[in-house]
Amino acid sequence: MGAMAPLRSYVSGAWQAPGDEGAPLLDAVTGEEVARFAAAADVDRAAALEYGRRVGGPALRELTFHQRAALLKQLALHLREHREELYALSARTGATLADSKIDVDGGIGVLFTYASKGKRELPNDTVYVDGAVEPLSKNGTFVGQHVCTPLRGVAVQINAFNFPVWGPLEKFAPAFLAGMPSLIKPAPQTAYLTARLVELIVESRILPEGALQLLCGEPGDLLDHLTEQDLVAFTGSAATARLLRTHPVIVERAVRFNAEADSLNCSILGPDAEPGTAEFDLYVKQLVAEMTVKAGQKCTAIRRALVPADRIDAVAEAVRERLARVKIGNPANPEVRMGALATLDQREEVRRGLKALTDAAGIVFGDPRRVEVIDADPERGAFLSPVLLRADDPERPEPHEVEAFGPVSTLLPYRDADHAVALADRGRGSLAGSVVSADPEFVRRVVLGAASSHGRLLVLNAEDAKESTGHGSPLPMLVHGGPGRAGGGEEMGGIRGVLHHMQRTAVQADPAMLSAVTGRWVDGAPRNTEDVHPFRKYLEELRVGDTVVAGPRTVTLEDIEHFAEFTGDTFYAHMDEEAAKANPFFGGRVAHGYLVVSFAAGLFVSPEPGPVLANYGLENLRFLAPTFPGDELTVKLTAKQITPREGADYGEVRWDTEVTRQDGVTVAKYDVLTLVAKRPAGKES
Amino acid sequence: MGAMAPLRSYVSGAWQAPGDEGAPLLDAVTGEEVARFAAAADVDRAAALEYGRRVGGPALRELTFHQRAALLKQLALHLREHREELYALSARTGATLADSKIDVDGGIGVLFTYASKGKRELPNDTVYVDGAVEPLSKNGTFVGQHVCTPLRGVAVQINAFNFPVWGPLEKFAPAFLAGMPSLIKPAPQTAYLTARLVELIVESRILPEGALQLLCGEPGDLLDHLTEQDLVAFTGSAATARLLRTHPVIVERAVRFNAEADSLNCSILGPDAEPGTAEFDLYVKQLVAEMTVKAGQKCTAIRRALVPADRIDAVAEAVRERLARVKIGNPANPEVRMGALATLDQREEVRRGLKALTDAAGIVFGDPRRVEVIDADPERGAFLSPVLLRADDPERPEPHEVEAFGPVSTLLPYRDADHAVALADRGRGSLAGSVVSADPEFVRRVVLGAASSHGRLLVLNAEDAKESTGHGSPLPMLVHGGPGRAGGGEEMGGIRGVLHHMQRTAVQADPAMLSAVTGRWVDGAPRNTEDVHPFRKYLEELRVGDTVVAGPRTVTLEDIEHFAEFTGDTFYAHMDEEAAKANPFFGGRVAHGYLVVSFAAGLFVSPEPGPVLANYGLENLRFLAPTFPGDELTVKLTAKQITPREGADYGEVRWDTEVTRQDGVTVAKYDVLTLVAKRPAGKES
Repeated sequence: MGAMAPLRSYVSGAWQAPGDEGAPLLDAVTGEEVARFAAAADVDRAAALEYGRRVGGPALRELTFHQRAALLKQLALHLREHREELYALSARTGATLADSKIDVDGGIGVLFTYASKGKRELPNDTVYVDGAVEPLSKNGTFVGQHVCTPLRGVAVQINAFNFPVWGPLEKFAPAFLAGMPSLIKPAPQTAYLTARLVELIVESRILPEGALQLLCGEPGDLLDHLTEQDLVAFTGSAATARLLRTHPVIVERAVRFNAEADSLNCSILGPDAEPGTAEFDLYVKQLVAEMTVKAGQKCTAIRRALVPADRIDAVAEAVRERLARVKIGNPANPEVRMGALATLDQREEVRRGLKALTDAAGIVFGDPRRVEVIDADPERGAFLSPVLLRADDPERPEPHEVEAFGPVSTLLPYRDADHAVALADRGRGSLAGSVVSADPEFVRRVVLGAASSHGRLLVLNAEDAKESTGHGSPLPMLVHGGPGRAGGGEEMGGIRGVLHHMQRTAVQADPAMLSAVTGRWVDGAPRNTEDVHPFRKYLEELRVGDTVVAGPRTVTLEDIEHFAEFTGDTFYAHMDEEAAKANPFFGGRVAHGYLVVSFAAGLFVSPEPGPVLANYGLENLRFLAPTFPGDELTVKLTAKQITPREGADYGEVRWDTEVTRQDGVTVAKYDVLTLVAKRPAGKES
Repeated sequence: MGAMAPLRSYVSGAWQAPGDEGAPLLDAVTGEEVARFAAAADVDRAAALEYGRRVGGPALRELTFHQRAALLKQLALHLREHREELYALSARTGATLADSKIDVDGGIGVLFTYASKGKRELPNDTVYVDGAVEPLSKNGTFVGQHVCTPLRGVAVQINAFNFPVWGPLEKFAPAFLAGMPSLIKPAPQTAYLTARLVELIVESRILPEGALQLLCGEPGDLLDHLTEQDLVAFTGSAATARLLRTHPVIVERAVRFNAEADSLNCSILGPDAEPGTAEFDLYVKQLVAEMTVKAGQKCTAIRRALVPADRIDAVAEAVRERLARVKIGNPANPEVRMGALATLDQREEVRRGLKALTDAAGIVFGDPRRVEVIDADPERGAFLSPVLLRADDPERPEPHEVEAFGPVSTLLPYRDADHAVALADRGRGSLAGSVVSADPEFVRRVVLGAASSHGRLLVLNAEDAKESTGHGSPLPMLVHGGPGRAGGGEEMGGIRGVLHHMQRTAVQADPAMLSAVTGRWVDGAPRNTEDVHPFRKYLEELRVGDTVVAGPRTVTLEDIEHFAEFTGDTFYAHMDEEAAKANPFFGGRVAHGYLVVSFAAGLFVSPEPGPVLANYGLENLRFLAPTFPGDELTVKLTAKQITPREGADYGEVRWDTEVTRQDGVTVAKYDVLTLVAKRPAGKES
């Protein structure tokens, strides 16, 4: 058997071998060679970027958000079928099965979430309309609105070694949904797992060609070829983030650069959480989990455990007890709770960090030089004992500045809520923090106090413990990233992460032109009333602007009294002239708002069975002026937004609805939401 | 008379003179000394930052968004009283009265807009809740939501010379509304006008101490003292932007850095706009205005005029004619349409740019070395003729790369819409662009095509011309900034600009704790039902969570038929069992959604006069399940958000409303919006 072939790159539409044989990547547990990685990788990086821009971008921009979302779901289902294979490879990075699930299932979960959010929260269109129409002029002939369109470049995604599946997928999913192709550069240490992931994706042929490329190698001259329309999303060390951020091309071309760096995250035990309370136990349990899951190699792991000064002994004791029960060793052994670090180098780095930390803190548990392991060689594998430190002087700089990226945390005492916030802020920007408490006052104070230095804050207590996903887990619907030391970036956060891949542009125009640009009817744009009732049109036949005008109908005092009696809504403004006059807004008896919208529906309805299947809601209803007895109401209903649903025989139509009085004053304005059938096969237009 | 005193800084709560006498700043028209500017300014910059953080920040964070908004309005009114003085000083920068109004009134307008947006679009609270509650678990005990809190540092605002009033105010207003103190550093050339503006602000005593500081001097070591919680907002040249962006402290601490740089903005004439059309004339008129307003010293001015190839002669001729009529000279003379550049140095720089441009383009109008002026000395004043260039080869790099920051534009021919977009994109990122056309197809294609390289795009035609604010005017409700060459930043855009000064933090908790943090009731948080009807409580007495549960009420078939007849809404799903069965969503006759919400109102209403003054709207109404004849409805109404209105005797209360059937299924969910009176003076609680 010859030497192992080095990992290939998938660029410019093909798998490409690097020009040299590369260096070995070793199994974190056994020290055996798993794969080879050629750093220099003789791959034309400029061509890969250009391929993404020329082939991947246009193909993606042809698809609507919903179509892209559907592909993400297909991809998630496909990868789920291959989980076992990914777990097996993941074990070689030192991960236990539970660790692997966080990485693999977590990554697949991001795809599912973006598929679902894309379908529910984005339009079935290629343009995202951001925010309301802004009136810019008195007579309404000049208005503004923001649109977001995908950047026309490539999202260069530089990943860290610790999550070789989740890491690439959490960056890829929002980019893809935005309509921007990705170029993934995995960290060398665990690149074999990312490479296999990409093989699975490429083999599936689910994605348009050019939507995803893989560079197995150093960046080389990659960044030199970036343009103003590309972006870089980086996860890794603060030092590398600095280097990239000051890259001349990134600076010169103002290339969007997002960094997510490890931070010195804290977890705060509330003063209410005495030993014996559920919260005390939850705190200890979570701290131990954060130290040992992925052998502490998580950028969100708890590095600083802040506890009330009078509680530090009790916490130290409880954590020590629990850590002593954690079995370390070969993840293949089901008894093992904590595996190995990713590499022997990584272990050395953690030991260096520990050395610096012990200047300010004593060791409560663990020996950085020695650890008992099961089913493995403690020296060939990158094993390290969990180490709990304790710094009785919480003002010493080391615990707030030195990160040991492994199973290491430091206990620190605090005095009161303000002191806890001040210590939390000493991290100078963190990805995540947690407060373990059942005291709402303390929680509010600490969360709002520490929010400006945190990207995410978890409140843990007996109420949410069962369902909580824990301190260390970023979730795709929430932002991931933090200020300062954490890199100053923001990823995911649901649709927010999609928008990071798009340019927001303010469009100023007359309403008709704005409508032409956004594909949505806006107030002041032409209404098409010379046609059949729009409720008689199938989805494909409807056009934005199609309108029905109906009425007038007079609202009598009898109507108001009858409606009051029928519904039970005998509010004085409808029933008592004297009292109504005293109300600052009415000046006399008025019709119920609910009566107005009910009469409006009676006016615009088209009763016979037809394409409109249901009115499933209303949005932004405002009663803008009173309706007095004797007023005549007219309603205008205009198709505002038409959203075909992929794979269904109907879609959503949003109707702008305006009810006016005989004097032209608008009494109510709202959007009616309906489901409208697509034309059945065989039916003619 | 002694030498003029140099401009002072307002830092650390006092006006401070620089340590030296500084260098003269000259009147752009007469060359006389207007003020002196001491670049080195012996001012303790670190102390100023610390003062902002220690005094200004906490004072601002004490105020709610509405209170800050009210102060902005007060400030706007105060400055409006002193407009004339500012115009007079502005004239010395070379500005005509019209130019000065853009700067002064524009700046005051930004304050008014942020005052109004703050009141209407932000809560009367110190925390901004961003987006919906995110369900994170099956049983709802673990949920997430994003909050935004002000950064705890100082917004360092580095301004350009061309808008000494608008520039500082457009940066200050969103920072102030966010709750972040500002430190303004004006450009030296026109710093006397900004200094006077700040004097007016300080004299007014409207703002909390420390909310606004002024540094009249070079940055010096200012940036060395930035922390992770400060930010820098810069407007100026791309070269300076690069320098600042790579400042070691900004990089090391991931300090937020926003840049807005001049760009090579384009204006595109539509193919429909033949000579003789309104659009042709509008195009020419706008181009001339953009060249001459502020003597072309606007970062948004049109540098590249893209016209259909067959129209270039006609446009050149029409622009030349108009430019020939523009009178240049002393702005004090009412005939003068264009004043001077800001400084003689600035004129030299424009001449250098023109020299580079003429490698690729011929001069159609104007002599860079000679200009006729009225009431002024053409050499002592920084006067320059408008210069129109024409590049018949639009692919030459110079027009797309060289900026002459003065009254200079270049005509370029394009072939078709795609070519126009490609040429627009050659600017590699622009602040603003415009399309002058009445053809919706062309407009849609060009706007969506060029959006990713533009921060703002204006569509101009006969419809909006009268009310349009024009190509060059950023508006506070729209984003200002652009990708790539334009700096890659974003300012204003209404509340978006406020959020640029806040940290977004994902909070994960059980519903009760989330509610404690945000001050808003969320689904799953406790409801307080053991009390009086919440509609009987004044605003101050109401607590988030206060609830009324009412019902049940049975909906009979007679009710449905009666409601149909009464309102006219005889939709088949309510009236025809057979047809309703065939509907994919109902499976039989159902009650009207409007009937359900009307009955709900009849259940939760408290009829007698009381604190609840009006129901002014509904939000997010969704009909989630059908209500069948015989179903019994119960409604739960819970106070979700309480917003006292500053300076009014009432506030807004948003009520979470849920209507359920006897089987526990929710049939409708929505927010009811009401106005609730504050307790009248003298009334007891």
